[in-house]
Amino acid sequence: MTEFIPPGTRYHPLSSPFPMKRGGQLIGARVAYETWGTLDAQAGNAILIVTGLSPDAHAASNPDNPAAGWWEAMLGPGKPIDTDRWFVVCVNSLGSCKGSTGPASIDPATGELYRLRFPKLSIEDVANAAVEVVRALGINELACLVGNSMGGMTALAILLQHPGIARAHINISGSAQALPFSIAIRSLQREAIRLDPNWNGGNYDEDVYPESGMRMARKLGVITYRSALEWDGRFGRVRLDSEQSADDPFGLEFQVESYLEGHARRFVRHFDPNCYLYLGRSMDWFDLAEYADGDVLAGLAKIRVGKALAIGANTDILFPVQQQEQIAEGLRAGGAEASFIGLDSPQGHDAFLVDFARFGPAVRGFLDTL
Amino acid sequence: MTEFIPPGTRYHPLSSPFPMKRGGQLIGARVAYETWGTLDAQAGNAILIVTGLSPDAHAASNPDNPAAGWWEAMLGPGKPIDTDRWFVVCVNSLGSCKGSTGPASIDPATGELYRLRFPKLSIEDVANAAVEVVRALGINELACLVGNSMGGMTALAILLQHPGIARAHINISGSAQALPFSIAIRSLQREAIRLDPNWNGGNYDEDVYPESGMRMARKLGVITYRSALEWDGRFGRVRLDSEQSADDPFGLEFQVESYLEGHARRFVRHFDPNCYLYLGRSMDWFDLAEYADGDVLAGLAKIRVGKALAIGANTDILFPVQQQEQIAEGLRAGGAEASFIGLDSPQGHDAFLVDFARFGPAVRGFLDTL
Repeated sequence: MTEFIPPGTRYHPLSSPFPMKRGGQLIGARVAYETWGTLDAQAGNAILIVTGLSPDAHAASNPDNPAAGWWEAMLGPGKPIDTDRWFVVCVNSLGSCKGSTGPASIDPATGELYRLRFPKLSIEDVANAAVEVVRALGINELACLVGNSMGGMTALAILLQHPGIARAHINISGSAQALPFSIAIRSLQREAIRLDPNWNGGNYDEDVYPESGMRMARKLGVITYRSALEWDGRFGRVRLDSEQSADDPFGLEFQVESYLEGHARRFVRHFDPNCYLYLGRSMDWFDLAEYADGDVLAGLAKIRVGKALAIGANTDILFPVQQQEQIAEGLRAGGAEASFIGLDSPQGHDAFLVDFARFGPAVRGFLDTL
Repeated sequence: MTEFIPPGTRYHPLSSPFPMKRGGQLIGARVAYETWGTLDAQAGNAILIVTGLSPDAHAASNPDNPAAGWWEAMLGPGKPIDTDRWFVVCVNSLGSCKGSTGPASIDPATGELYRLRFPKLSIEDVANAAVEVVRALGINELACLVGNSMGGMTALAILLQHPGIARAHINISGSAQALPFSIAIRSLQREAIRLDPNWNGGNYDEDVYPESGMRMARKLGVITYRSALEWDGRFGRVRLDSEQSADDPFGLEFQVESYLEGHARRFVRHFDPNCYLYLGRSMDWFDLAEYADGDVLAGLAKIRVGKALAIGANTDILFPVQQQEQIAEGLRAGGAEASFIGLDSPQGHDAFLVDFARFGPAVRGFLDTL
């Protein structure tokens, strides 16, 4: 699975055994990460970025890998997360397939891929693994912890489980608990993969691969990552050229269908299907209310952080802005100076990956106050 | 496929040949319908109901079939559509599998099922077939034409193609053109069916049947028919009892997953997969803008109807209320006395099937003015 790992990735060997929240432990596991900028003498200028479901640790270009990263516009010298000022770390999530240990990694106990023998994965495990990287880099306290999407969950788990780990926090399009609409979407994505005969109980290989299931899962993801409003303006009812469109009445005809197909083709062979199942379920399970007798605001209020900003897109249907508003409210109840910004980005949940004109100033403005 | 047809269904033989908008014609085709109430001597009290994608013609109980119908609360003596006053006709859409001719019917030319040899189906064809039933019942002018969801499209096609057919119109959760989000959802539903090896190019039977594909398609439908808001209150993060929940980490665990599974199980063997493909695509293709050089409002303004009401649910993500607002605006531009009501129903697109406390008074209030 080495093709999933960007060049220049560094690795941190996790403590071994590494205990997992829902039982079991990992032996000899590792977390992939990249860094930008320079850590100051007091190790006081560090920012950790934890990511959404699919990104790797290559958030932006750096000397080890000059290729553009998935957050290139946000991270670098003079950019909203200014690497002339900040030392930035981005980790690949535990359970992923982009360098960190996950279901697509070798299980040292058997010498074979973990596949479904990988222990149940929780966001809390992803959080603990990320914190080990921070500690290993000599950082006792982060200047700021930034989490996007699933990373917004991971960040909250980090803050809850490691009091004092960060002075400030930016939660972008995240949530303190999974709600039933997003659980339903992810459940259907998993079902698409598991119904593909080539998934074969997780025992696929490059030749017999659940490509159809992954294509369905990815298309459903893309539909829920964006927004109807954006697509009305972007695609409308525009047809494909006749040479691109299919002959049969159920083939590709509209531009929006071709767009989904393109996204699916770029994804299906670049993300491990079993890792997709594990990471998706970890999000379903995440719920800060479990730490406070079923009260999610009280769960958030257990977090100690000095200053926080929750940002969301008003068109997000997967992690609706009410969830980011709730994060700000809960953190405020815990004593943080916390605010919420709902941005009028048309691009839905994915807005933080594309609408830099809105997300850039919001992030920069907050970091400038630190 | 007789099991799909409710008892007491009546049939109207369509004119033969029946020409289809996108080419081809049907020989010896028929439309299934039911009626309630009594047509007055002037044939002036008739209401036609055209339906969403999956319902049959059994909108409510009647002497021929006392079983409750899919709009039982809305239709009957003293109900919002009061059958003591109105003579009501509901037709099953052409192309469906609930009594009307469609891909699951016998092609008289071959003596075998049409399957994918059924000609391309348009909403305009569904509209023309419904109008033949109205004419055959001796009705020159409907007192009101009511269309729900896909039926909202059908109703607009009826009005446009048959000027003078109705004095009044209620369009419920309908649209004048398919937009890319809904096209994307339906495209993915079709892909799920077509990727199921048992679909077999449309040549399945009861034994080898695309059950997985239909299950996926239906679940995706249900997700987009309801709303996240409703599900937050209805399911939250409630788990299944341990005896109901699956052992494996990717099986059913949350109530919302079990709800989707139940919906899928009730549907997959009760709707023909090929009919699902045809009807879905007919909705994608529907666009009143085609009648007015690409201007959808101008297309609506070509319709002549005296009085109209467009109703929608503010939580609808599949046919968002802006589309019903647009219908009212366009019909008004065409000279109709047209208004729009956006209801605060939490149930999304399906609200007209469940939120009778809101939809009932809206429909009754309009009919009372006729």
